[in-house]
Amino acid sequence: MTNLEIAITGGTVATASDTFQCDIGIRDGKIVALGHDLAQHAADVIDASGKFVLPGGIDSHVHIAQPSGEGIVMADDFESATLSALFGGNTTIMPFCLQERGQSLRKTLSEYHSLADHKCYTDVSFHLIICDPTPELLGQELPAAVHDGYKSFKVFMTYDNLRLNDAELLATFDVARDLGATVMVHCENEDAIRFLIEKHEAANKLRPSSHASTRPVAAEREATHRAVSLAEIVDIPVVIVHVSNGQAIDEITQGRKRGSSITAETCPQYLVLTSADLEGMDWEGAKFVCSPPPRDTADQIACWRGLKDGTFDLFSSDHCPFKYNSPDGKLNPRGAKNFRHIPNGIPGVETRMPILFSEGVNKGRIDLNRFVALTATNHARTYGLYPRKGTIAIGSDADIAIWDPDLEVTVRHADLHDGADYSPYEGLELRGWPVTVLLRGKVMIRDRKLEAQLGDGQYLPR
Amino acid sequence: MTNLEIAITGGTVATASDTFQCDIGIRDGKIVALGHDLAQHAADVIDASGKFVLPGGIDSHVHIAQPSGEGIVMADDFESATLSALFGGNTTIMPFCLQERGQSLRKTLSEYHSLADHKCYTDVSFHLIICDPTPELLGQELPAAVHDGYKSFKVFMTYDNLRLNDAELLATFDVARDLGATVMVHCENEDAIRFLIEKHEAANKLRPSSHASTRPVAAEREATHRAVSLAEIVDIPVVIVHVSNGQAIDEITQGRKRGSSITAETCPQYLVLTSADLEGMDWEGAKFVCSPPPRDTADQIACWRGLKDGTFDLFSSDHCPFKYNSPDGKLNPRGAKNFRHIPNGIPGVETRMPILFSEGVNKGRIDLNRFVALTATNHARTYGLYPRKGTIAIGSDADIAIWDPDLEVTVRHADLHDGADYSPYEGLELRGWPVTVLLRGKVMIRDRKLEAQLGDGQYLPR
Amino acid sequence: MTNLEIAITGGTVATASDTFQCDIGIRDGKIVALGHDLAQHAADVIDASGKFVLPGGIDSHVHIAQPSGEGIVMADDFESATLSALFGGNTTIMPFCLQERGQSLRKTLSEYHSLADHKCYTDVSFHLIICDPTPELLGQELPAAVHDGYKSFKVFMTYDNLRLNDAELLATFDVARDLGATVMVHCENEDAIRFLIEKHEAANKLRPSSHASTRPVAAEREATHRAVSLAEIVDIPVVIVHVSNGQAIDEITQGRKRGSSITAETCPQYLVLTSADLEGMDWEGAKFVCSPPPRDTADQIACWRGLKDGTFDLFSSDHCPFKYNSPDGKLNPRGAKNFRHIPNGIPGVETRMPILFSEGVNKGRIDLNRFVALTATNHARTYGLYPRKGTIAIGSDADIAIWDPDLEVTVRHADLHDGADYSPYEGLELRGWPVTVLLRGKVMIRDRKLEAQLGDGQYLPR
Amino acid sequence: MTNLEIAITGGTVATASDTFQCDIGIRDGKIVALGHDLAQHAADVIDASGKFVLPGGIDSHVHIAQPSGEGIVMADDFESATLSALFGGNTTIMPFCLQERGQSLRKTLSEYHSLADHKCYTDVSFHLIICDPTPELLGQELPAAVHDGYKSFKVFMTYDNLRLNDAELLATFDVARDLGATVMVHCENEDAIRFLIEKHEAANKLRPSSHASTRPVAAEREATHRAVSLAEIVDIPVVIVHVSNGQAIDEITQGRKRGSSITAETCPQYLVLTSADLEGMDWEGAKFVCSPPPRDTADQIACWRGLKDGTFDLFSSDHCPFKYNSPDGKLNPRGAKNFRHIPNGIPGVETRMPILFSEGVNKGRIDLNRFVALTATNHARTYGLYPRKGTIAIGSDADIAIWDPDLEVTVRHADLHDGADYSPYEGLELRGWPVTVLLRGKVMIRDRKLEAQLGDGQYLPR
Repeated sequence: MTNLEIAITGGTVATASDTFQCDIGIRDGKIVALGHDLAQHAADVIDASGKFVLPGGIDSHVHIAQPSGEGIVMADDFESATLSALFGGNTTIMPFCLQERGQSLRKTLSEYHSLADHKCYTDVSFHLIICDPTPELLGQELPAAVHDGYKSFKVFMTYDNLRLNDAELLATFDVARDLGATVMVHCENEDAIRFLIEKHEAANKLRPSSHASTRPVAAEREATHRAVSLAEIVDIPVVIVHVSNGQAIDEITQGRKRGSSITAETCPQYLVLTSADLEGMDWEGAKFVCSPPPRDTADQIACWRGLKDGTFDLFSSDHCPFKYNSPDGKLNPRGAKNFRHIPNGIPGVETRMPILFSEGVNKGRIDLNRFVALTATNHARTYGLYPRKGTIAIGSDADIAIWDPDLEVTVRHADLHDGADYSPYEGLELRGWPVTVLLRGKVMIRDRKLEAQLGDGQYLPR
Repeated sequence: MTNLEIAITGGTVATASDTFQCDIGIRDGKIVALGHDLAQHAADVIDASGKFVLPGGIDSHVHIAQPSGEGIVMADDFESATLSALFGGNTTIMPFCLQERGQSLRKTLSEYHSLADHKCYTDVSFHLIICDPTPELLGQELPAAVHDGYKSFKVFMTYDNLRLNDAELLATFDVARDLGATVMVHCENEDAIRFLIEKHEAANKLRPSSHASTRPVAAEREATHRAVSLAEIVDIPVVIVHVSNGQAIDEITQGRKRGSSITAETCPQYLVLTSADLEGMDWEGAKFVCSPPPRDTADQIACWRGLKDGTFDLFSSDHCPFKYNSPDGKLNPRGAKNFRHIPNGIPGVETRMPILFSEGVNKGRIDLNRFVALTATNHARTYGLYPRKGTIAIGSDADIAIWDPDLEVTVRHADLHDGADYSPYEGLELRGWPVTVLLRGKVMIRDRKLEAQLGDGQYLPR
Repeated sequence: MTNLEIAITGGTVATASDTFQCDIGIRDGKIVALGHDLAQHAADVIDASGKFVLPGGIDSHVHIAQPSGEGIVMADDFESATLSALFGGNTTIMPFCLQERGQSLRKTLSEYHSLADHKCYTDVSFHLIICDPTPELLGQELPAAVHDGYKSFKVFMTYDNLRLNDAELLATFDVARDLGATVMVHCENEDAIRFLIEKHEAANKLRPSSHASTRPVAAEREATHRAVSLAEIVDIPVVIVHVSNGQAIDEITQGRKRGSSITAETCPQYLVLTSADLEGMDWEGAKFVCSPPPRDTADQIACWRGLKDGTFDLFSSDHCPFKYNSPDGKLNPRGAKNFRHIPNGIPGVETRMPILFSEGVNKGRIDLNRFVALTATNHARTYGLYPRKGTIAIGSDADIAIWDPDLEVTVRHADLHDGADYSPYEGLELRGWPVTVLLRGKVMIRDRKLEAQLGDGQYLPR
Repeated sequence: MTNLEIAITGGTVATASDTFQCDIGIRDGKIVALGHDLAQHAADVIDASGKFVLPGGIDSHVHIAQPSGEGIVMADDFESATLSALFGGNTTIMPFCLQERGQSLRKTLSEYHSLADHKCYTDVSFHLIICDPTPELLGQELPAAVHDGYKSFKVFMTYDNLRLNDAELLATFDVARDLGATVMVHCENEDAIRFLIEKHEAANKLRPSSHASTRPVAAEREATHRAVSLAEIVDIPVVIVHVSNGQAIDEITQGRKRGSSITAETCPQYLVLTSADLEGMDWEGAKFVCSPPPRDTADQIACWRGLKDGTFDLFSSDHCPFKYNSPDGKLNPRGAKNFRHIPNGIPGVETRMPILFSEGVNKGRIDLNRFVALTATNHARTYGLYPRKGTIAIGSDADIAIWDPDLEVTVRHADLHDGADYSPYEGLELRGWPVTVLLRGKVMIRDRKLEAQLGDGQYLPR
């Protein structure tokens, strides 16, 4: 027990199931001791009295530096995205490597690695996005990638250039089952959305609010039912990401009742935004364009109930940042005239946990352990990073966020660290924020001040 | 009230809502009088004492003389099919005109008309099958056909050569809504079935029972949910045909609860057969190969409950006859070795109503009025033949079936009139059978003896 | 066909399943002919051109002249109630005989008969209310009453002086099953309501709106589930009356899915009123105090869907009239100070069918045949009056209401005929109203003018 | 970190959320250190290599020494029950203090304490059973008892001498809410069961299997819906104990979807027994008489799914032991002739966790952390013993069970330690059993040998 590098003392430690008072001893980047009176053995002591000592957040649904077509660029590179994540209490994020059609998977991975290497403030592990599941890809490239540690991939049922049809979904699920890989599904029916977009365009309904009315609950509910059913047929567990509404939740509940193994995720935008936010003056609604779109207050309630009662396993940001007032962002020349050209996605990697903490824990909707499970532990478990990541336990990486549960913060984009030029949560008043963050035993942020070096974050194969 | 051509006297008359004792007066092929003591005014008197006098059956789901690929031919032409229908108490059937890819709709219709004209023992009205919804077809041919009275069409979500994808379904629904046409949907997920067929073939599971295991409830439930959802998005009523199981029923109930307008159909095979029938000795299971396949006893109960409680509107045969012991039928050279080459479909136009009457009415599961609604009235209403067809009311066609409710009949294919060489219901003991049938006032069958002439049946535009 | 007393000519006749054009011939109070050109044979001809000729309405849920305790008297005797019913298109109503504790059933019946005999403008058949199911009553009095034609009874799960506990419900159901009698259940959990009333009183929340908040959906849903479950255990069909909301509807749907035989009823107050109506200025909300109380707009939609999709079989008024501005009515000395002393019930026997016709048929929510089924045929079937009552068929009583489908009427209590001093629907603008009504072949109202004599209505044993 | 009394080294430690390798240091009966290389600091070292080190089990549903009427006595006193519990891996059990009608609560508690004091091998905390909720009890005795640490109580909806009616349930819930106490509900409809018992007796169906048919799923489902609804009305969380079937599970799921806070429990008998077990030869079925009774295999599957997907929070034994072959047990003079006199309940405190471990963890139905949550942590959380009990965390009591996950044991009552004379699980082959158990740091069982002293267990106020 001697020779600790750091001791975190006096705090209230929480895991996904437990809350207790103890000191934490860290050595070689790992948690090596939980007990009392550890300060005497440590070179550096962090006093966490009156604070919550939680596993560093894992945000398993983050988009960084992906191409978005038509000259639109995401507002974050790995540096800004991971810095923002870090300030939001995260120590690991999981962005996507988007395979472009015709490109080899190896080349795709290589490119994303070159974007990320030495540019990160958090640890990073990649999901693949599979949009072109050729026999070659499924039979050779994908097994090789899984072997190399890329053990999860996302498939889309929407977006013209990304969507898989049912045969492709089945083939991809089938390979994933054989490989033991994890599949995430974006559930919206592309053909239905396309149909509605054309109707809206024909009726000259081109404002941002049409984004919500062309992606109705029925389109998400249908795709959710379908994804669950195809997974049932292949007999594979499935992750349904960014569930936005009560009807889709019902599909997940019904699937589980039939015996399906389903992991479910929701996001901050479905708790504190509604489709009314897309109806703002001028083109302000564009700031809230994401898919699925925010729904109504009854759906917010349904999502909160799902977070509390265990329907949801994961709470992610779906961070997908674009500038608003910029010709290469939301208000690009075409997007400023027609909702369908507004890039889909909103920033949120930094505000994810503070929103859930303030609206959830501090308002009594969920307890602290659910918070930890939803923001860290379940992500690590779902995607194979556990027990290295996602908890405070002997042997785990010393990825720790120390929260001041009473710190009051009004969200101002000026105070955030991402590369966008706005926050969809501007003005939201929150209570509770991470103040000190350690990554593998290194103090990255201390008392809200950055001590980290660019490149402190590492790549995590699984 | 004078000058009746026919009076049917002394029977118990039933409509979809009422049961009463009265005479029926017929003139010019129409029902012109309901009352007492009509015999004195009539040239021909049919004594129906002790009998049920019901609207002639309408079987709105019948396949005749469709090409089935690979040299397989349906076992019925219009003559044998309508004769069989007539002996089963039907006065109208609704077969399909299958548009072949690349062929014009007009030519398709012309060909089916040439097959049917002057060859029918019942009245006939056609549904179209839309399998190639090109812009030309949807924009020009289909509106013209609807204008000409072909106001209903069926679309498939299964069968490689017939299936529509979601975009095609939406486009077809959209045109149907504008035209006021009725759309029937065969709900099974083709890709899921294809996936399972390939797995079964790879595992050398080639016997007829694999037909059932490659078309699981999940594949039908999924497609049902999808069809209902796409119709919800287009805001069009939809007919879900041949529902086979409780899970698909639940999807229909849920859709209606959300406000969707859904007409639902089931068939005899889902009441008295199970998937165990496909597991017979040798290749006998081929006799029961139809899609969706029969399910289990719990699903039979669910279907009976749906017939009773109003979930189902229609009870049809899905008559789709193939010979069994024949090289151009079920046991064709490829089908005799691999279930996927066994043509899908079973005969049943003659036994449809006797099965429902015996198992339903006589066993107390449904009442006589539900029987009439399910076998005649609701078909006429759904497909625009009402009030000309489907009921016993002043002004309606004198299409009447007189049933002996106590006649005991054991089903023997030798006694039936279709062109197949077997019945899937061979040996089933039934009580109740139609003994006299009138079509537009003409006695077609009297006391189980044919009096009709080939060609008495006519084409019904709508 | 000769010697008709009356012919109704040229109208559009509708039954629960059919709509057709024909004349109706009436003799000896019965419908004896349906056909064409009947006028020539008739002594009296009623021209119904452009009108709907429907079965006279049956309102199977009407309270008349029941004692309500504390000196409160119902505002209608049999004369005013049946006159009001008649003007609303009804030819039969089914009021209740309330057995008072300790009183013999025979005496109860005798008293109600003395109140009703020779005082009715419509036919009348009684339900019993069983509130004291002693062994003597269940073993002797009730079988005798059923034998005498009182084949239906209502039981209450609420109201301190009426409620049965579960053991009593089971015993009553058990006897009803053996007798083949029909049981109606008022489903609200009395103890829950009592609990909430005490809470409201303790909090000095005494205004009429507390009536709604002390009888929440949960109290009705619970009792509905319980009634359905107890009937399942006894294996008896059950009638769930005045269902007010979507959650209770779901319980009925689930019960049917499990195989229970359930008849379900709703009422106008659940279609066009909401709980907000109880929140009026001063004590105006008292006008809308009935049980269950009106709910919210989502529940109105759920009720409309249930009327359309067949979940509901019956549409009744639950007419239960009290004066508003009267010391022996709603504003009695205690009721004017505390909601719990406002008598429960609202008038509505005259407006029941016009509301459903206008809001349902004329607005396209249901069709004319569903209207007939919901307002007449299903009542006759449920309570054993069919086929004598409830339809237009040969042999049935000539109980007929001729409706002008386009007559525009704004509801004014001054124009109604009941004994209350207000209508909860005051000011509601309706289109469609019955203009001529025949009871057993006698013209009771012709062109909205009364031709009937008091006492034309008769008692109907069953 | 020095001066540990005990170190448990080399094991795999699991909590409700985490699994990790570490040593555990114990001092003063508490867990004081988690880390590596702790053996050197400890007086006693327990080598747990290859073993699972889990929180000691908490069985929150145990009946001991309760009177059962008619001279029947439970087969366990506190000594035998806690010894049996200890050998089954438990360190805390929560038996009931049954208030007898008319007796003061204080006297009841005093009596149970005198039975338990110095007679226990595990720690013990009491629930109250409230069967006579008089105003005095609810207003004075119960608040005093809660103040003294008896913070949970069970109410019954069945058993003639125990059941509360709805008003009593509401009043009890209301007081519990004000006191912050936890209410457990036994959900079966007594009147329905009574009704069926009388029917069975009248039909001379007196064998043990009638116990199952007189307590059908409908009786449990109904009571579950009612308990959830009454708790909704009072706005109090509720614990639904010993849920046996899929329909009751659905009620819980629906309640949560509506926003209710429900904790749900199931038991081993609903996983590995069925109602067929009550149909044994002679009177052997009596061995399986418990309430609710075991159901069918579909319900077993539903329960397993509920354990996996989080529907169930608690897994308890409902240990309620009676001798079988004894005149004061199952085969008492009246019980041996009529099922209704067979005392309800089966022993199971020792086999509870081994059954779930073997059938659940080792067969892959649930993971080790769910096992810990279901058998220990959630019990402590639900009943206010957390964090003192139910987990392995710094500061918690050193209540630890070390499991050999591969030890194969065939259940033989001869090897168990309870006071009954049979096990309902006789012959069941299990893999995995606790071999060493510590209570507050004292080794109670070491390598399956008892080292504890009677009285080592203590009473736990909360």
